Amino acid sequence: MKTLVTVVFQPSGKRVEVAEDTTILTAAQAAGLELITPCGGKGTCGRCRVIVASGSTSGGEIDNNYVLACQARVHTDAVIEIPAETSDSKAKILERGEQRPLNIQPQIQKHYLVLTAPSLGDQEADFDRIAAAVHADINGVLQAETSVLAKIPALLRENNYKVTAVVNGIRLIALEPGDTTDSLYGLAVDVGTTTVAGMLIDLNTGKWLASASRTNPQTKHGDDVVSRIDFSSQPEGLQDLGTEIHECLNDIITELLKQTGLKKEDIYGMSVAGNTTMSHLFFQIPCINIAQAPYVPAFRQGFELPARNLGIEIHPEGCVHAIPNIAGFVGADTVAAILASGMHESERMQLLVDIGTNGEIALGNKDRIEVCSTAAGPAFEGARLTFGMRGTEGAIEKVVINHSLHLDVIGNQKPQGICGSGVIDLLGEMLKAGLVDETGRIVDSDEIPESLPESLRNRIISGKNGNEFVLVERESQPPIVFSQRDIREVQLAKAAIFAGIQVLLSAFGIQVEDLDAILLAGAFGNYIRRHQAKQIGLLPNIPEEKIKFIGNAAIEGAMRVLLSKEERDMAKTISDGVNYIELSARPDFQDHYMTAMMFMD
Amino acid sequence: MKTLVTVVFQPSGKRVEVAEDTTILTAAQAAGLELITPCGGKGTCGRCRVIVASGSTSGGEIDNNYVLACQARVHTDAVIEIPAETSDSKAKILERGEQRPLNIQPQIQKHYLVLTAPSLGDQEADFDRIAAAVHADINGVLQAETSVLAKIPALLRENNYKVTAVVNGIRLIALEPGDTTDSLYGLAVDVGTTTVAGMLIDLNTGKWLASASRTNPQTKHGDDVVSRIDFSSQPEGLQDLGTEIHECLNDIITELLKQTGLKKEDIYGMSVAGNTTMSHLFFQIPCINIAQAPYVPAFRQGFELPARNLGIEIHPEGCVHAIPNIAGFVGADTVAAILASGMHESERMQLLVDIGTNGEIALGNKDRIEVCSTAAGPAFEGARLTFGMRGTEGAIEKVVINHSLHLDVIGNQKPQGICGSGVIDLLGEMLKAGLVDETGRIVDSDEIPESLPESLRNRIISGKNGNEFVLVERESQPPIVFSQRDIREVQLAKAAIFAGIQVLLSAFGIQVEDLDAILLAGAFGNYIRRHQAKQIGLLPNIPEEKIKFIGNAAIEGAMRVLLSKEERDMAKTISDGVNYIELSARPDFQDHYMTAMMFMD
Repeated sequence: MKTLVTVVFQPSGKRVEVAEDTTILTAAQAAGLELITPCGGKGTCGRCRVIVASGSTSGGEIDNNYVLACQARVHTDAVIEIPAETSDSKAKILERGEQRPLNIQPQIQKHYLVLTAPSLGDQEADFDRIAAAVHADINGVLQAETSVLAKIPALLRENNYKVTAVVNGIRLIALEPGDTTDSLYGLAVDVGTTTVAGMLIDLNTGKWLASASRTNPQTKHGDDVVSRIDFSSQPEGLQDLGTEIHECLNDIITELLKQTGLKKEDIYGMSVAGNTTMSHLFFQIPCINIAQAPYVPAFRQGFELPARNLGIEIHPEGCVHAIPNIAGFVGADTVAAILASGMHESERMQLLVDIGTNGEIALGNKDRIEVCSTAAGPAFEGARLTFGMRGTEGAIEKVVINHSLHLDVIGNQKPQGICGSGVIDLLGEMLKAGLVDETGRIVDSDEIPESLPESLRNRIISGKNGNEFVLVERESQPPIVFSQRDIREVQLAKAAIFAGIQVLLSAFGIQVEDLDAILLAGAFGNYIRRHQAKQIGLLPNIPEEKIKFIGNAAIEGAMRVLLSKEERDMAKTISDGVNYIELSARPDFQDHYMTAMMFMD
Repeated sequence: MKTLVTVVFQPSGKRVEVAEDTTILTAAQAAGLELITPCGGKGTCGRCRVIVASGSTSGGEIDNNYVLACQARVHTDAVIEIPAETSDSKAKILERGEQRPLNIQPQIQKHYLVLTAPSLGDQEADFDRIAAAVHADINGVLQAETSVLAKIPALLRENNYKVTAVVNGIRLIALEPGDTTDSLYGLAVDVGTTTVAGMLIDLNTGKWLASASRTNPQTKHGDDVVSRIDFSSQPEGLQDLGTEIHECLNDIITELLKQTGLKKEDIYGMSVAGNTTMSHLFFQIPCINIAQAPYVPAFRQGFELPARNLGIEIHPEGCVHAIPNIAGFVGADTVAAILASGMHESERMQLLVDIGTNGEIALGNKDRIEVCSTAAGPAFEGARLTFGMRGTEGAIEKVVINHSLHLDVIGNQKPQGICGSGVIDLLGEMLKAGLVDETGRIVDSDEIPESLPESLRNRIISGKNGNEFVLVERESQPPIVFSQRDIREVQLAKAAIFAGIQVLLSAFGIQVEDLDAILLAGAFGNYIRRHQAKQIGLLPNIPEEKIKFIGNAAIEGAMRVLLSKEERDMAKTISDGVNYIELSARPDFQDHYMTAMMFMD
């Protein structure tokens, strides 16, 4: 038995218990922190430098007080400081929530085969010899494409009939020399309207090896799905949009491979979550009808195809699995998020809110789930705001107004803009301080409560479209401000989500008080201050302990689908069984929407 | 009710009963005769000219006594003369034997769908709407490739949601505007070492619409499978051999489409029979190990792939189905021939002999079937003989020696060579006349029986490799002869087949007398004179009425597989269940082989 030690990480304050002798890198990952490790933790790149503030470690010593997190092992309770340059802030998008247990049994399996060489007394064909050897482990008769069949004869003979069969369901997708069963990897992908994220997973252990994300390059055509659909209807538009995501994903894959030292041929499986439009664009299937009533997608059901058909740079025979959608505006990402949340298996009445460019909301329990989608817009992803930005380095992620203005910036850098959680904080704090009234108007200087110090009062300035609140004064650059128009964007977004929640509650005939939990998913879910989300009316007023952060549930669900056939089947059950409520057809949605525009206690 | 009339065709003497008012073309097809009909029987090309020798017809009259067979209808019993230029001698390769009844239910089906247009109250996705509509008719959940999914949205809307779904098993392979269920076609293909043949079939009715064949262009690399396998191991060899067959098949398809007026997109299914090597080369899968002990193919099991993957010019999403093989030297053609013969369902003990470039032999009944393959060589296909040729126009197909020499030439043309049935006749007649002794030696002039007329005696001449028998003297060209070396080739071939039959009989512990029937299949099966086949010792000595011709059973079986899922499943059962006997491992084969070399009564 090993002794457990407690490691506290600064500046986040996150704490984790790990076995004595664990590396700092592993401890940091266990605490949900991502460090920059281009060499994949081999101790060669020198990038994962951290400071041991207290406690005893050994190994990985470099100059001053720095050690390499991947090499240094903790022997006692310790406090570790992670310098800004070592923290992989991109990974914030991928922070994982609590993980439900999982029966690891991927659709893609490897079988090490030690076959008998043929003889005049045993002339069975090469492929059929393999098929017979795996027969007991698969549910059907093994099949293979001719591209795979063509490689079998030489591989068998060159490797003395000792080979590893890579099988997807009942299809032999590759044959590898010798025993490679230890090496089986998959890629979970969430294609968001604003952000594309990939997570590399060990399919044998379920371990999350690396993650990376990029801004969806399609954002150059517009920041919401409707602008993409418009573009897709132009000549070559659909092809171009698809190619843009594929290239973006290939770029992510390149980074993941660099981080882990794996080769693209090591990755045999990929599952794709994304909203319905992104899912169509990824597979280059026309989605024009999603944009016009009655908002019908080309497909709902999931499917899979070989990576080579899309030019995705994993193993060419690797399987790209499209997680099923639910409706035109509730996609595979919501199916995956429900799967990750476990609400479909729970007795409890839970509300799942996934705030991305659209706000998808699901309410229910194991007996019934209703979903809807609100066109919230990308305000909470930082888009459409004067100084909005994604939650990456340089983004103001936390705001406190308390006699003076306090800002937290991701990476402890010079601030460049404000991200979603910062926006919610800022608006909440401004409301509380009386800098914004209940209609959402930034008050004029002469209306500012006298109790506020001069330094705060001076931050209200008059801009070209109404008042503005100055967040950061900068030399030789205009100040970073939060404008009246920014507030209107946030109002529209939060009202849409709030109204969607109300419609779902009505569908069940229940009140906010009947909710057992609100599960907050999405790119920045984990970073929202719950009281601020209630303050601005994004979430209904329920006890804070009932609001749970479940991280990037879409990619977590995509990972579950990749790791377990049962979960894959369950994704289909969810897609088939969940009921979609079309809000545009509901007058009560409009009523709730108008009311929710206001800021009230 | 219609009156039946009897039509006799000359010069073949074939007779058929048809309903009054049937066209001569249809009557000829019913009699198993193929006429040249480039326009597909539309009365426009004027090529199907025939002479009404007696009886009454109407329509299609042209100059002299000629009528167009496709337009003229018979009103009374009639005798019709088919001029040589109208007879499609190529079709001889495809002559059909007796057909067993068949439950027409192709793997590929069309479903005409009249779908409800979507609305805000019914937002089901396009593909899922189709899937729901066909669900009751298929065994599983409908699937589709992205290339098909991509076409659905526009097709549905342009056609007011009235479309025809083309489904292969559980896969949607195409969607067509409106109701096209009447039009569903398939192509049965036999890729022989020497000849590639295609038969176009109406999958709704099972009707044989057209057939065409070509010499396998691979013959330029050698006339047996081993020479092809050798070539396939050269760089690009495998690709080149595959492409050669594909181009040849595309040429056949072009001819079939011209004959029938169909488009390539009308053909959704294709089944491929062929010996194991041809099957590998067709799908470009290495077959090098078939040529060396223990003679192991890369695959035995059947599979299917989209036509576009091979560049076969049917509908690009059409399915090319590889009929399963049995062993390295007993292929899909034998599986198909067994299927066509019905021996696998019969109580009777039947021997199936398929004489192509190899001689595949099967013996058994519904309880057990044993097969073997003899490297007979292509002598019976006309190859390797001084004046050997395929059974096409200009080939001597029948020989009678009866005081003088009588020759029948296909197409009633000037003879150019001799085909398989002619070779068997000739050798049989020479043996009977004493021109060849029991060791296969062409006797010298002075050994010729005195009872023979001078004209025959003079036909024995001395060639550079022993004696030769002159078949045809020609002006300004050397005579067409049958040489001592030719006889040796035939001896080797017939001995191999005979010895193979003996081994199979031993496997069952039965005698020739226990056989209920010998079923003769293969390119020229129908044209063999049974008594001559026994005379030369190609077939064992059993009553002639027990020898049945079943035509080109391989392509007939391929057609059955295309027309019926049950037959397709049965092909797999045959492939799995039949036992292959490797003759090279059997000393008794060598004994029988040596003995069978002789010609004995």
